[in-house]
Amino acid sequence: MDYLNIITEIYENVQKYENKGEVATYIPELGKVHPNKFGVCLSTVTDETFNVGDAHEKFSIQSIAKVFSLVLAYKIEGPKLWKRVGVEPSGTSFNSLVQLEYENGIPRNPFINSGAIVICDVLASLLENPKEDLLAFIRKVSNNEQLTYSERIVASEKATGFKNAALINLMSSFQNITNDIDLVLDLYYNLCSIKMTCKELSSSLLFLANNGKITQTQEEILSKSQVKRINAIMQTCGFYDEAGEFSYKVGLPGKSGVGGGILAILPHNYSIVVWSPKLNKKGNSYRGINFLELFTTKTASSVF
Amino acid sequence: MDYLNIITEIYENVQKYENKGEVATYIPELGKVHPNKFGVCLSTVTDETFNVGDAHEKFSIQSIAKVFSLVLAYKIEGPKLWKRVGVEPSGTSFNSLVQLEYENGIPRNPFINSGAIVICDVLASLLENPKEDLLAFIRKVSNNEQLTYSERIVASEKATGFKNAALINLMSSFQNITNDIDLVLDLYYNLCSIKMTCKELSSSLLFLANNGKITQTQEEILSKSQVKRINAIMQTCGFYDEAGEFSYKVGLPGKSGVGGGILAILPHNYSIVVWSPKLNKKGNSYRGINFLELFTTKTASSVF
Amino acid sequence: MDYLNIITEIYENVQKYENKGEVATYIPELGKVHPNKFGVCLSTVTDETFNVGDAHEKFSIQSIAKVFSLVLAYKIEGPKLWKRVGVEPSGTSFNSLVQLEYENGIPRNPFINSGAIVICDVLASLLENPKEDLLAFIRKVSNNEQLTYSERIVASEKATGFKNAALINLMSSFQNITNDIDLVLDLYYNLCSIKMTCKELSSSLLFLANNGKITQTQEEILSKSQVKRINAIMQTCGFYDEAGEFSYKVGLPGKSGVGGGILAILPHNYSIVVWSPKLNKKGNSYRGINFLELFTTKTASSVF
Amino acid sequence: MDYLNIITEIYENVQKYENKGEVATYIPELGKVHPNKFGVCLSTVTDETFNVGDAHEKFSIQSIAKVFSLVLAYKIEGPKLWKRVGVEPSGTSFNSLVQLEYENGIPRNPFINSGAIVICDVLASLLENPKEDLLAFIRKVSNNEQLTYSERIVASEKATGFKNAALINLMSSFQNITNDIDLVLDLYYNLCSIKMTCKELSSSLLFLANNGKITQTQEEILSKSQVKRINAIMQTCGFYDEAGEFSYKVGLPGKSGVGGGILAILPHNYSIVVWSPKLNKKGNSYRGINFLELFTTKTASSVF
Repeated sequence: MDYLNIITEIYENVQKYENKGEVATYIPELGKVHPNKFGVCLSTVTDETFNVGDAHEKFSIQSIAKVFSLVLAYKIEGPKLWKRVGVEPSGTSFNSLVQLEYENGIPRNPFINSGAIVICDVLASLLENPKEDLLAFIRKVSNNEQLTYSERIVASEKATGFKNAALINLMSSFQNITNDIDLVLDLYYNLCSIKMTCKELSSSLLFLANNGKITQTQEEILSKSQVKRINAIMQTCGFYDEAGEFSYKVGLPGKSGVGGGILAILPHNYSIVVWSPKLNKKGNSYRGINFLELFTTKTASSVF
Repeated sequence: MDYLNIITEIYENVQKYENKGEVATYIPELGKVHPNKFGVCLSTVTDETFNVGDAHEKFSIQSIAKVFSLVLAYKIEGPKLWKRVGVEPSGTSFNSLVQLEYENGIPRNPFINSGAIVICDVLASLLENPKEDLLAFIRKVSNNEQLTYSERIVASEKATGFKNAALINLMSSFQNITNDIDLVLDLYYNLCSIKMTCKELSSSLLFLANNGKITQTQEEILSKSQVKRINAIMQTCGFYDEAGEFSYKVGLPGKSGVGGGILAILPHNYSIVVWSPKLNKKGNSYRGINFLELFTTKTASSVF
Repeated sequence: MDYLNIITEIYENVQKYENKGEVATYIPELGKVHPNKFGVCLSTVTDETFNVGDAHEKFSIQSIAKVFSLVLAYKIEGPKLWKRVGVEPSGTSFNSLVQLEYENGIPRNPFINSGAIVICDVLASLLENPKEDLLAFIRKVSNNEQLTYSERIVASEKATGFKNAALINLMSSFQNITNDIDLVLDLYYNLCSIKMTCKELSSSLLFLANNGKITQTQEEILSKSQVKRINAIMQTCGFYDEAGEFSYKVGLPGKSGVGGGILAILPHNYSIVVWSPKLNKKGNSYRGINFLELFTTKTASSVF
Repeated sequence: MDYLNIITEIYENVQKYENKGEVATYIPELGKVHPNKFGVCLSTVTDETFNVGDAHEKFSIQSIAKVFSLVLAYKIEGPKLWKRVGVEPSGTSFNSLVQLEYENGIPRNPFINSGAIVICDVLASLLENPKEDLLAFIRKVSNNEQLTYSERIVASEKATGFKNAALINLMSSFQNITNDIDLVLDLYYNLCSIKMTCKELSSSLLFLANNGKITQTQEEILSKSQVKRINAIMQTCGFYDEAGEFSYKVGLPGKSGVGGGILAILPHNYSIVVWSPKLNKKGNSYRGINFLELFTTKTASSVF
C-alpha cells in the first residue's frame, strides 16, 4: 500500500478544515505549544517509516506513557498483575472516587489515573531503581538513549496533583499501595513527563503490532498472548470516555494523551502516531481522531 | 478450515472439565433448563453451517435479542438514534440509576437494560404495530416464520421487573421516553422472551459478518458502515462487566444473554453461537466463554 | 404573652421587605396561586387562636400532609414501623435513588418522598379503605368533616410523577412495598392533594404540642413518647436540605410543603402555621422562614 | 433537682445490663482502654458538679474536640465561616467522597472529618501559632493549664490516616484548603489527640449551656446567637448517622467521639459528659446513649 501518499493526502485534507477544540492548559507546559502543530508517523512491521508534518518535533506524550509502564509491569509480574488492577472500562469519570471506594481500592483498568498509579507502585516494588530502570526500559524499546524525564513538567504536575493524591491515599486505605506515597507519585509524574516525536513514539511501540518483538532485533518484549492482552485493554480502555466512539470510527486499539498525541496499532501491520494539540470535549486530539478515521477507512484497516 | 473437526474437538474438550457457575433463576422459566445443555453452531458467510451438541434445541436468548431491536431501530432511524442512547461502556452496574440520573436520562449504550428500553421506545414510535413489526423483522432476518414471543416468559419478567420499571420512569422524568410506559415495557419484555436454537440465532445474525447483507438473498439489512458500528458496540458493551476480559480472551465482538447464550462475530467470516446455561459471576455463560476462547485461539480469529 | 400583637407586628415587618423566591410550578395548580399571599395562625394548647393575613384561605399543604400519614401509621403500627423506614436525615437529594439502592430499599426517613410512599404502603395494608380511612383520620384530628382530597391536584401529580414511580418500583424490587404500586401511589397523591387554611392546619396538628392529646376533647392521638418521636423526626428531617439552617434560625421542630406552608411546634405551648407561596432555593417558604425566625427570637421560643 | 442521686441510680442501673458493642481499635491507643470503664459528670450553670464512676480518669475525647475548634473558628471568623463549610446533616458516610466532589469541596458540616479538617485550615490561617494557640484556647475554657496533645495518638492517627489525606487532597483540588496540607493535617490530628476526664470536658464546654459565658468568670466566649448556632449544629450533626435516633432518645444537642465519650447540653441548665468505651454499630458509646436516654427521661430534659 502506498502509505506515504495516503497519509499525505489525508493530512492535507484534514488541514483544510477548522481546527476545533482546546489545547490542555491545566499545567503551563502544555499550554505553550502551538495549537496548529500537526504531525503523523506510521511505522510498519517491515521497518518502513512514513512521516508527514511535524512528525519530528517532540511533544508531551502524557498518558500514552502509561503503555510503557503497563508493558514493563506485565512483563515482569505476569497475570498476578490483574489482582492489583482490573481490565474493564470505567464509565464516566464523575464517579471515579466512589467507584474506587466501592471496589475496595482496585482501579478498573491500568489507563485511568488510579490504575496507572497502582502500576507505578508495582514497579516501585519490582525495580531496584524505579525511575532509572523504567527510563532504561523506555530507552531500550525506543532504541534512543537520549530520552529523558522533563523536570519542569514533573514540577507542574505535582503542584496541581491534588486529585491524584486523593486517589493514591484512598487506595492506600485499602492496602492497594505498598510503597511510600510520595515515591510512587514521583515515579508516576516522571513517567507522564516524557517527550517524544511522533516518529520516536511510533517506533518505540511498534512491537505491539509485531507479536511483541522489536522489529530490528527480534528481541521479545512480550509474548504473543501478552500483546493480545495489552491491545485488548487499549481497545476498551484507551480513550477515556470515548472508547466506544473511537472503536467505531477508527476501529483500532490505541491510547491517547492530553498533549494531543494518539497511538494506534493494527496488529501484524503497523503502529501509527498522530499529534495535534487541540482536544475535543472528551479530551482526545480533535485532528488526531479525524485523521485516523479517514486513514483506517481509506486503508480498510478497521478490525470490524 | 475444517471447522467441524475444530468445534467438535473443542466441544469434547470443554465437556471434560467441571461445568462451573449457576443457572439464572430470577424467573422460573430460566431455572427449569438442564444445566448441562451445551450446543454450538457456526455459520460462515459462504453459507456453510457446523453444529455440535444441543445446537437444535431452543433456549431463551434473552439479551441477545437486544441486537435485533438495535439493528432495526438503527436501520430506520440512522445516526439520530445516538441522541437517545450512547455508545460507551457503562462500568459496573452498581450505579446504573445514579449514572442515568447524572447523564440526564440518556443510557450509556443500547445493551444495558435502560438503553434497550429506550430502543424499544424508539421502535414504538417508528413502527405501526410495534410488537408485530419487530417480530416480523426478526422472522425475516431469521428466514423463519415460526419464531414467536413466549407469553410465559413475558409474564414472569413483568412480575419481577420492578428495577426496569424504576429505570423507565426515571428516563420518563427526563423526557427520554415518549410512549406509554406500559406499552414500551411490554415490547421490551416480549423482545427478551424469544427462544431460538443455536442454529437459528447464528444464522439470523450472520449478516453482521457479511457487510450487512443476508447471505442467501444478498438483501442489505444494514450498510457496511452501520455494521461496523453495531460490531463496535458489541465489542465494547456486549458482555456486561466482562467486556474487557472477553475482548482479551475471545477477541471478537459479541453479545451474551442470561439464558446462557453467547453470539460472536468474525467480520467477513462467520457468526457463532454457543449455548450453555451455567453463568459465571459476571453473568456470562461459563462454558460459552471457555469454548470461544479455545476456538478463537485455535483458529487465530482474534482481532488483536 | 401577647401573641396577637407579636404576630401582627412581625407580619407587617416581613411584608415590608422584598418577597423573594419562586412559586412552585411543577404542577399547574401550584402555579396559579397569588405569590403575595401571606397568612399566619398560631394555636395554643390553652385553645386560643391568633390569626393574621390570609389565615382563612385554603392552600395546598402538600408535604405537610406527610405528618398526618406518619402519625396514623405510627399510632397503629407502633415501633415496628421503623423496620420499614428510618429516622435519619438524608443529606442532599442528588443521590436519593442510589442511597435507596445502597440501603436496600429502606428510605432514610418518612418525610422524603420514598419514605412517605412506604408509609402509604403501610397504611394500605392496615386500613380497610385506605383513602377513606386516612381522610377520616385527618377530618377527626381537624374536627372538620368538610376536608377532602383535590382530584385536580391528584391528576396533575400523577401526570408528572415519574420520579416517584421510579422510587416505588425500586423499593418494590427490595420487597419494601407490599401492595399494588398504583394503589399506593394513588393514596400518596391523594394525601398530598389536601388543601387547608392556616387555621385548620395549625389546629389539626396542635396535639403534637399537647402531649399527643386533642386539646378540646383530651382524646389521646399519640402517647407522650410517640409525640416526642414525631417531633424529633420533624426537627432533623422536616425541611429538605435546610434542616440544619432551620434548626438554627427557628429552633423548632416542623415541616414544610412546596405549596409554601410551614408548620412548627413548640412542645407544651403552641403550633403555628405560616403560608407564603414563594420558595427559597432549598424549597421552603421564603417569608415563612423569615417570619418564624423573627417570631421565635422575639418570643424566645427556640429550644437551644 | 437531686442530680447526684439521679445519676448514681441510673449509673447503677445501666451497669446491671450487658455492656454491648466494641471498643474502637483502628489505632492501638484506643484499643488499650478497659472496656468496662464508665464515668459520668454533670456540670450546672450554677457551678455545681456531680460525678459518678470513672469521671476522673482521662480518656481520648477524639471527635468531641471538634467542638473546641469549631467554637474558636466561629468566634474569630463569624458567619463568613459558613462559606467554607455547611451546617446540614450528611446522610450516610458511604458516599462521603462523592458528596464532597459533588458539592465542590464544601463539606456538609463541621463535624464530619472533611468539615473538621476545613475548620483546622481556617484556624491555620487565623492563628499565629495554630497548634499552640488552639491548645491555649482549650486550656482557657477548661481553666486547666495542664491539658496537652498526645504525641502517641497523633503518630498513630497519621500512620493510618489515608482516608483523611484523600479528603484534604480532594478539597485542595477545589481550592477549599489554603494552607500546606501536612500542616493542616498535623493540626487536625493534634486536636483529636486530646485526653480529658469527664469532669474536665463537661466543665470546659459548660459555656454552651450558659449563653456563651464561662460560669465562673462570666467571660463571653460566644454570643447568645452564636451558641444557638453551635447547639443547632450539634443537634442535627453531632452523632454520625445516629443523629435522628439520638434526637428522639435523648433530645439534647451533643457530640460523641470514638473514644466512647458523649457530651450533651441542656441550654440554660447543664452540660453532661458520659464515657464508656464500647461503641454501638453507629460508632456511639453504647452505655453513653443508654445512660443519657434514661437521664433525660427521668429529668424530663428533652427539648421535645
